[in-house]
Amino acid sequence: MRRWNGWGDEAQDYPLNEVARGFLRERVGQGSANRDASLESVLAGVAPSRLANGPFLTDAASRAQHARGQSYPDWLALRYGKLGPVADAVALPTSSEEAEAALAAALKLGAVVIPYGGGTSVVGHLDVPVSDRPVVNIALGRYNKLRELDERQWIARFDAGTPGPLVEAQLRERGFLLGHFPQSYEYSTVGGWVVTRSSGQQSLRYGRIEQLFHGGRLATPRGVFNIGGLPASSAGPDLREALMGSEGRLGLLTEVSVRLRRLPTHEDFHAVFFPTWDLGCEAVRHLAQADLGLSLLRLSNEVETETQLALAGHEKLIAWLRRYLKVRKVGEQPVMLLVGTTGNHREVLRLKREALAICKQFRGVNTGRAIGKGWAKNRFRGPYLRNSLWELGYGADTVETCVGWNNATATMRAIEEAARSLFAAENEKVHCFTHLSHVYRQGCSVYSTFVFRAGGDYERDLERWTRLKRRLSETIVAHGGTISHQHGVGRDHAPYLAQEKGELGMDLIRAMAREFDPQGQMNPGKLFA
Amino acid sequence: MRRWNGWGDEAQDYPLNEVARGFLRERVGQGSANRDASLESVLAGVAPSRLANGPFLTDAASRAQHARGQSYPDWLALRYGKLGPVADAVALPTSSEEAEAALAAALKLGAVVIPYGGGTSVVGHLDVPVSDRPVVNIALGRYNKLRELDERQWIARFDAGTPGPLVEAQLRERGFLLGHFPQSYEYSTVGGWVVTRSSGQQSLRYGRIEQLFHGGRLATPRGVFNIGGLPASSAGPDLREALMGSEGRLGLLTEVSVRLRRLPTHEDFHAVFFPTWDLGCEAVRHLAQADLGLSLLRLSNEVETETQLALAGHEKLIAWLRRYLKVRKVGEQPVMLLVGTTGNHREVLRLKREALAICKQFRGVNTGRAIGKGWAKNRFRGPYLRNSLWELGYGADTVETCVGWNNATATMRAIEEAARSLFAAENEKVHCFTHLSHVYRQGCSVYSTFVFRAGGDYERDLERWTRLKRRLSETIVAHGGTISHQHGVGRDHAPYLAQEKGELGMDLIRAMAREFDPQGQMNPGKLFA
Repeated sequence: MRRWNGWGDEAQDYPLNEVARGFLRERVGQGSANRDASLESVLAGVAPSRLANGPFLTDAASRAQHARGQSYPDWLALRYGKLGPVADAVALPTSSEEAEAALAAALKLGAVVIPYGGGTSVVGHLDVPVSDRPVVNIALGRYNKLRELDERQWIARFDAGTPGPLVEAQLRERGFLLGHFPQSYEYSTVGGWVVTRSSGQQSLRYGRIEQLFHGGRLATPRGVFNIGGLPASSAGPDLREALMGSEGRLGLLTEVSVRLRRLPTHEDFHAVFFPTWDLGCEAVRHLAQADLGLSLLRLSNEVETETQLALAGHEKLIAWLRRYLKVRKVGEQPVMLLVGTTGNHREVLRLKREALAICKQFRGVNTGRAIGKGWAKNRFRGPYLRNSLWELGYGADTVETCVGWNNATATMRAIEEAARSLFAAENEKVHCFTHLSHVYRQGCSVYSTFVFRAGGDYERDLERWTRLKRRLSETIVAHGGTISHQHGVGRDHAPYLAQEKGELGMDLIRAMAREFDPQGQMNPGKLFA
Repeated sequence: MRRWNGWGDEAQDYPLNEVARGFLRERVGQGSANRDASLESVLAGVAPSRLANGPFLTDAASRAQHARGQSYPDWLALRYGKLGPVADAVALPTSSEEAEAALAAALKLGAVVIPYGGGTSVVGHLDVPVSDRPVVNIALGRYNKLRELDERQWIARFDAGTPGPLVEAQLRERGFLLGHFPQSYEYSTVGGWVVTRSSGQQSLRYGRIEQLFHGGRLATPRGVFNIGGLPASSAGPDLREALMGSEGRLGLLTEVSVRLRRLPTHEDFHAVFFPTWDLGCEAVRHLAQADLGLSLLRLSNEVETETQLALAGHEKLIAWLRRYLKVRKVGEQPVMLLVGTTGNHREVLRLKREALAICKQFRGVNTGRAIGKGWAKNRFRGPYLRNSLWELGYGADTVETCVGWNNATATMRAIEEAARSLFAAENEKVHCFTHLSHVYRQGCSVYSTFVFRAGGDYERDLERWTRLKRRLSETIVAHGGTISHQHGVGRDHAPYLAQEKGELGMDLIRAMAREFDPQGQMNPGKLFA
């Protein structure tokens, strides 16, 4: 059963032992456990629907269930029972025809439509606007089948609502794999990946969604638009690229064709430690530019390395590691690089040899596969940590960007410094740490996590987060970074998009949306105001 | 000195010996040498400029020089001295500022603007419209410098008018390479590659222009638009992808940043022969899907294999090859695959081993590097053959598309059959042959060449070509192929674009152009009517 006010399945958690708790107390302060609002009280507060007696579900539970995503404001709203605006109705189509019929019916009612995939947005893609018009969620959670698999052309067509595990399970049976593994993988959907221009943990091998999205069927207010479906073309602008990142503004994506790989037979993740951030960062740049064909490069900075080891709470392993790194002269503040090698047996051996040779030039010390195995096992469990933290009285959020190599370190330091100092006047500490996890020949993503004390006061928590988000977004934009490398724009990042795209670029995006959706009924307020 | 009415430098030619001529006589019939119009007579026919006394060049020679590209109708126009409409004026900027000033001045005059890069379009991108408005060519031939090279981030910024050899020469000095090698490489420009969404011979390794284009500066009627410049982003639609393939309709591209590679140290091209087309085609599909990291896979069908050997005219080599292939049981109608391996010494050895192992599964026989060396040496000389053919009384043209693997052979056969039978009633033969040269996991490009008798009668030649082009374009579209994999749309392919993009897709493209160019002054008639 999925949690209604937190991340993931209720049967799964991310326990923190005393070592981990002590670390948090030291870095952030003593938290105090939060008391959450009950689901009953939340449902009791849901306003009457303006679309009663229509073709859609209008019960409070269905509407509340689709009202929020996983942004920090969403989180606070759910935990404090301050749900805010809720859609008037929910459609749960199980086929392309039903989805298109739901869209047509909603538009005919003059409603605003919010497409809802897995509900994992962390930037407000699902925010329900306060509107004179009624609001309908078209939720694709029951629309999740593999419809066609071309084993000769390596193309699969999925229902847009298919979440990660169902994508891979349906492909695995036939010996194929998509390879798109965002941290939200358990719930996020193939359609959501496309419209938010998503990127998975192993994009280094498998590509971003841009490289995986073959074509699709988009239901727009002006009719159905079939898009893409060719291996390559020079015939005019690539309209798949207009759809990717359109965040619902162009229509409702109902079918998605993707480009596949054969299932690899071997995969390893090696943990390599470097004495300093600068050495690790240079190693990663050289690895990225060597273009070996690795499947993962993920460099944690000093604090993230330390934090990961502490939160894992595995004292013996840590002690062994510290001794080993001391012997190998890596020093007291190591940074950790995970190196993913995927393919057949021979490829994996070759990739390991070539990657470690480059690491060695930068004094990297390989500690083998034990840590990497743990990472792989828990790769989608990160978000569960947020539940555990909250129960201990801590909030957590992340920001991320992508910059050129010349800016990576400065951007990271500026983000962390801004966060650490922001609440000093209030005597509140922010624990923050960063990794680079998506690398390109020209630059890399920068992904920072923040942990701070929270709980007890909705207004105060939201105000602090708002200040933090604004400060960090301004810092990112000031360093020439994109406002998002992998989370998208939604409502939270919309104020910063123009600085990246330019006013003419914003005009171009608005012109496209207007062309398909002249009445502005498709997910208004997201991507641009 | 560049030929004014044919391909390339006057000092270069592509001589055909008696073996080659005999082959053509047998396959197409006896040609009769053409007598071309003189440059003087062409210039004498250039109409007076409507923009005399303005800021631009208006002499007949400058205007005639930029009136045409390299499409077959362009070719006939120049050879027969039927130049057709010519721009009223030409601007030859040498800087971004001058280019932007020229654009502003032209727009202010109410002119239609045709951006002109290397003049190598084969689909009518440069056609001068018959218009009540004056027409200005902004020609970037003198605007060709490397302006910035970031050796840490592997990014170079070029003037948009920089042609292939100047791109690579300026990078090579610093140990870098772009790796974009279309057949038009000698003259086509980095800006032209971007706006026509071009692809080079070794796109398998280096990527299409989509993977190489980092960002740029676009002068639009509404002002300057800076586009891209990030390694990756999930923040909304990727507007670089709106510019690529826009064919001048959005503005004048003046600066182009590209993503680089280090110069490789080793490169080989192996020629592998297969007994049948179907075996060769299956081998190529498996090679493409194995994703080894090869730099070229180019499979010629039976007739292209035979034609290439015959036109090379190298009797001894051919005789040896035939004997060898007989001994190795490849048969009388072999198909030839060129396999490119690029990288360091070790990579090249590994790639060879892995590629040849796959070829062997499909009865492919490696004949070594001699043929591949010849191909590499002459890789940009193909267009010169058109000059030689014309002088012997033959015309030549090509069509190309991209389809899924399931359609590749059927599309190829249908194209060839349509061409071969088209002029049967007139007792004229069309010699045609095909290769697959750009391969993807999902499919491949199909590139067919046609040789037919021509010359002596402009109207008849143009009418025959028009029939051929229409018939082949319809065949491509009917097989679900893109109307162009690498040449773009221009005027010749515009009638077929809607079938590929859909009416809503065309609306989206038109909406984008309208947004930046409300008066329709930028290269009207190209891409869409």
